[in-house]
Amino acid sequence: MRTHHLAVIGGDGIGPDVTAAALAGVRAAADRYGFAIETTEFDLGAEAYLRSGVALGEESIEALRGHDAVLLGAVGDPRVTPGVLERGLIVGLRVAFAQSVNIRPVRLYPGVDSPVAGVSPDNCDLVIIRENTEGLYTGGGSISHAGTPNAVAIQNSITTVPATTETVEFAFRLASARRKRLTLCHKKNILVHAGQLWQDVVDEVATRYPDVEHDYVHADAMCLHLPMDPGRFDVVVTDNLFGDILSDLGATIQGGLGLAASANHNPRGTAPSMYEPVHGSAPDIAGKGWANPAAAALSAALCLAGLGERDGALALEAAAASVLAELPALAGPGMGGDTAEIGRRIADRVTDVDPAKIGDPERSLM
Amino acid sequence: MRTHHLAVIGGDGIGPDVTAAALAGVRAAADRYGFAIETTEFDLGAEAYLRSGVALGEESIEALRGHDAVLLGAVGDPRVTPGVLERGLIVGLRVAFAQSVNIRPVRLYPGVDSPVAGVSPDNCDLVIIRENTEGLYTGGGSISHAGTPNAVAIQNSITTVPATTETVEFAFRLASARRKRLTLCHKKNILVHAGQLWQDVVDEVATRYPDVEHDYVHADAMCLHLPMDPGRFDVVVTDNLFGDILSDLGATIQGGLGLAASANHNPRGTAPSMYEPVHGSAPDIAGKGWANPAAAALSAALCLAGLGERDGALALEAAAASVLAELPALAGPGMGGDTAEIGRRIADRVTDVDPAKIGDPERSLM
Ligand SMILES: CC(C)[C@H](C(=O)O)[C@@H](O)C(=O)O
Ligand SMILES: CC(C)[C@H](C(=O)O)[C@@H](O)C(=O)O
Repeated sequence: MRTHHLAVIGGDGIGPDVTAAALAGVRAAADRYGFAIETTEFDLGAEAYLRSGVALGEESIEALRGHDAVLLGAVGDPRVTPGVLERGLIVGLRVAFAQSVNIRPVRLYPGVDSPVAGVSPDNCDLVIIRENTEGLYTGGGSISHAGTPNAVAIQNSITTVPATTETVEFAFRLASARRKRLTLCHKKNILVHAGQLWQDVVDEVATRYPDVEHDYVHADAMCLHLPMDPGRFDVVVTDNLFGDILSDLGATIQGGLGLAASANHNPRGTAPSMYEPVHGSAPDIAGKGWANPAAAALSAALCLAGLGERDGALALEAAAASVLAELPALAGPGMGGDTAEIGRRIADRVTDVDPAKIGDPERSLM
Repeated sequence: MRTHHLAVIGGDGIGPDVTAAALAGVRAAADRYGFAIETTEFDLGAEAYLRSGVALGEESIEALRGHDAVLLGAVGDPRVTPGVLERGLIVGLRVAFAQSVNIRPVRLYPGVDSPVAGVSPDNCDLVIIRENTEGLYTGGGSISHAGTPNAVAIQNSITTVPATTETVEFAFRLASARRKRLTLCHKKNILVHAGQLWQDVVDEVATRYPDVEHDYVHADAMCLHLPMDPGRFDVVVTDNLFGDILSDLGATIQGGLGLAASANHNPRGTAPSMYEPVHGSAPDIAGKGWANPAAAALSAALCLAGLGERDGALALEAAAASVLAELPALAGPGMGGDTAEIGRRIADRVTDVDPAKIGDPERSLM
């Protein structure tokens, strides 16, 4: 039997609970489609950091590397300086494992309400493809004379051809398998150097995908077009920071962060890819059982797709979507169940859901 | 009689028409409140650039400098490389005139529908204060080996204490005159150097405004909080690029770019401030009379406020808001009038509107 070895980083706050719930769905998909899942839990996150002073050590990286994929819950804890775990662990793994492509589907599932008028399952099915290792996330820069009137802060954004090309190539391939439209989102009227490199790469890769139409929209203008006319977009390719911001806007449009899934994808297969919900560790509701595991389950569906388990991926996506449609609210005491119970409901649904129910399976996922 | 000398840059596309319509409202306010307006038209924009090869020459800068304020329509034309006029003229003037504070009210006027569920005039009245001259807009950087696989693009973001402090100081003063809440928006978990400088400046200025509460929200999270809970915000202070993006999101929430006004404010009074609608030149509808001049009129209201004409400013804002509420759509052939006619309607309304009608005048505008 095919066996996939998953590294599981539950992390902090609601992370472990939503991950456990998502894994119930993964196991159900394995049972239905005849593959096996083996998991190794990694003790990473705030506790480990507070104990060791290290967010992500070399041994952890090497141990994680031996797995087929990484499932991550969430990291972040009030006891740790904000940013330390996010940079050390999440951004650290994205870079260490060359996960240059971040995949963020923005899909309104039937039965879920968008807060934006006119957005419906018929016009809201797009994917944001975000470069995941470069731009301002390289973190280079300095602050001199901090705290004085002479302080100057410098942040450097670095954009290279290899990571940009991998991202754009992935985006075109995806668009070619979907509705054949790609939009580059940047702010090239101001970020002229980075913008030119992005546009050059898009124009070059486009020659290999003559079936895909492409256009360009500024990052600011996306805040108008994405909510008002999501049907205009199929695949949106963008840089790390714009992708960070716009995918949260996408999450709002699709019904909230409780629904937003992501894949940190290594397109060359040289190291495991990592799958995580877009939401954070939500320390305020940790341990209460109020967290909706849908985003974690949808991320796990992306994981199955990345592992080549297409049927299992579609069934898990469909199961999570159909449970979502039954929940009265996305989190909180009134959400109609607790995290583990909703995980069990998703797992039950995986065994008999018809994946075709949530739309054209040919263009779902990746 | 007090006389204000306005420099008028109609610019390109719909710019001249919406500016003319807005000026009708300004003149009506002058008549009602007993001041005089003198205008000098400046021939800047695409035509002038195509003729001279210069977007903004030294003589233009010096001539503009002699005025009390600048009203700008819009720039941008299909015949000019995108970005050239925007950087040369708009960003050029922001920097030349030390307009370090960009003021963008996000207000849903009664009678205008927000596309976002739950947003109402009662909970949508905030102001985004954007630093307007620095960050990635300094434009420093390079692209080496452009067009080759070795290309590397570098963009430098520069943040200094003087411009940041002017912006934050303005934001706190405004918050203190409004609902006494200030939110710093940045991405300090990733942009650690710039983020630290911003947070340091906010913490320092906060000591002088003990009446104002302040908190912090990441730029990505704002894409969730701003549409879902605008009532949580009073004054949002942020950097140049985040402000560019978030103020377009604000425009969406308040009913569209056709309603979004802005002031490019020189807080030291060392050069004129500049007032412009957030929308662009919309070349596709230029000359058709379909452009809604509301954003230009609301920007002109900010201009009157900046000139110390508080009553005139409030009357013009109220008049524009009340005409807006009557328009069936924001632009296009069905909008219920043409640009000039709507300008006349706003001007008529200025003469008898009750400014108190659009809410608490104490906390409107700046
Ligand atoms: C946690 C943080 C570092 C991360 C990011 O900025 O990429 C998050 O916002 C995301 O979108 O995955
Ligand atoms: C035209 C452009 C340079 C400008 C900006 O990026 O600041 C515009 O988008 C704005 O928001 O005023």
